[in-house]
Amino acid sequence: MEADEPPTTGAKTVQDKNPATVTVIGLGAMGRPIAAELVKAGHPTTVWNRSPGRAGDLVALGAAEADSPAAAVAASEVVLVAVLDYASVHEVLDPVAGQLAGKALVNLTTGTPEQARRTAAWAAEHGIGYLDGAMMAVPAMIGRPEAKLLYSGSTEVFDRYRPVLDLLAESTFYGPDAGLASLYDLALLSGMYAMFFGFQHGAAMVATAGVSATEFAGMATSWLSAVMGAIHDEAAVIDGGNYRIDAQDANFTKSALDVIVRASRDAGIGVDVVAPMQELLARQIAAGHAEEAATRTYEEIRHPR
Amino acid sequence: MEADEPPTTGAKTVQDKNPATVTVIGLGAMGRPIAAELVKAGHPTTVWNRSPGRAGDLVALGAAEADSPAAAVAASEVVLVAVLDYASVHEVLDPVAGQLAGKALVNLTTGTPEQARRTAAWAAEHGIGYLDGAMMAVPAMIGRPEAKLLYSGSTEVFDRYRPVLDLLAESTFYGPDAGLASLYDLALLSGMYAMFFGFQHGAAMVATAGVSATEFAGMATSWLSAVMGAIHDEAAVIDGGNYRIDAQDANFTKSALDVIVRASRDAGIGVDVVAPMQELLARQIAAGHAEEAATRTYEEIRHPR
Repeated sequence: MEADEPPTTGAKTVQDKNPATVTVIGLGAMGRPIAAELVKAGHPTTVWNRSPGRAGDLVALGAAEADSPAAAVAASEVVLVAVLDYASVHEVLDPVAGQLAGKALVNLTTGTPEQARRTAAWAAEHGIGYLDGAMMAVPAMIGRPEAKLLYSGSTEVFDRYRPVLDLLAESTFYGPDAGLASLYDLALLSGMYAMFFGFQHGAAMVATAGVSATEFAGMATSWLSAVMGAIHDEAAVIDGGNYRIDAQDANFTKSALDVIVRASRDAGIGVDVVAPMQELLARQIAAGHAEEAATRTYEEIRHPR
Repeated sequence: MEADEPPTTGAKTVQDKNPATVTVIGLGAMGRPIAAELVKAGHPTTVWNRSPGRAGDLVALGAAEADSPAAAVAASEVVLVAVLDYASVHEVLDPVAGQLAGKALVNLTTGTPEQARRTAAWAAEHGIGYLDGAMMAVPAMIGRPEAKLLYSGSTEVFDRYRPVLDLLAESTFYGPDAGLASLYDLALLSGMYAMFFGFQHGAAMVATAGVSATEFAGMATSWLSAVMGAIHDEAAVIDGGNYRIDAQDANFTKSALDVIVRASRDAGIGVDVVAPMQELLARQIAAGHAEEAATRTYEEIRHPR
């Protein structure tokens, strides 16, 4: 202990006086802004990317560029990984597992809950503190208040390095099952992609009448915001488990989707986004639930036949 | 002209002193709240529904119940129709086309742009003023500020009866092509249904870890609101027509969707909602656009192969 340090220090004080050393592996669309936030906050930051030439801006900001995964891992107490997939995670880190022992590994790579759990088991075998993280943000959101990072895995790593993690986004911890952050992440991403693809389908429809995507985007975001509250109503029906209620029924919604599919075909555009929703309702109706709430399609997804 | 009326009156004055007589045909989830708003605003309101027993509450409010489509049409200068589909519209109205001559027909039934255009042509043949309307509202929104009604068709009918229409929702007129309101309607509904089904898929995923739909709905609405702005970015890319830009590319988004599909299968839930998005990206990649913006899937929908 240094003479000028108080005899007992909370993690935050140590953090402030000796900011954690952090390595960022993977300088893609997510890794670059993450490394930039860490450098700006005063953390000694080391970066490494498999293909060269992506670290220039970060080195100019003050980051150190490692010349190998081994050097990257050796440089810091915390290693953040944000690469394309779990295969890449293991290609890069399996050979340096020994050097990672005793350190904290925070894996922000998108993967399945099962992959996260297997990687947590691998880390435990090697004495590595493992935290699995999921970025609920598009790259431009990193470091901004609306960005969220979901974590699960090592409580110790989360608690100890939370000040570092909080630099990147609002952090939430879901407990020791390393797969949970990924499960929430993928569930939320499903909703996001479905919304974006729904917008693209609508934009393709109005384009057939010469309407620009930009004009339609204004209408669509206002409309989607207006109806978003119905998601809470759907959730209450799903949790209640009783679909024999006074609500828009499967016949009605199927009829609306029939019209959307027919109008899309009339206009010569693809029905990739809309036909599967029509099909889910057709399955619900064929199973004898035509007059139950359309929200019951949830059961068709949750328990496929 | 009554002695106590001024010698010249603007439509609004007549409207105020002698509120338009209105008939509502179809007392389903949309027709009932519409008729209720009209009665409450002081319009002499006549209602008719194919299957009996749905008018009780409205009659108690002050509406008159007609005993046939002919009587319903004869009772009023404006006839609003909100039934299941265009086949029902024509079943009910074709036999009374003669009685509709000289009146205003406002058709709020969901249909394709082509159906709206054909019905406008039918109305023109019979001397009926035809306005096609599309309800951008779930039933609970009728009469509330967030409800929107889109119209196209007869400018004269829209201008003359706008005070009546404005009681129901915020009204927007898209010009004389009777198909346009429907086209906008279906495009916006596509986005809404895609968002709802995306939520259902996400709720099914987290349900496998025991998370309630209600808890997930809170996370999902907050996340969807945070990323909704990206719709404007997508629109700008689509309108620009150049997908060779520095943005999330098809490879990256495909990889995320691969993980979502795999995790969904691992969890035993259906992939009806998510597999088609993966497939659109696979088609874009197969066509040689792997490193172009993922938003280019728009072109796969707009111009299917």
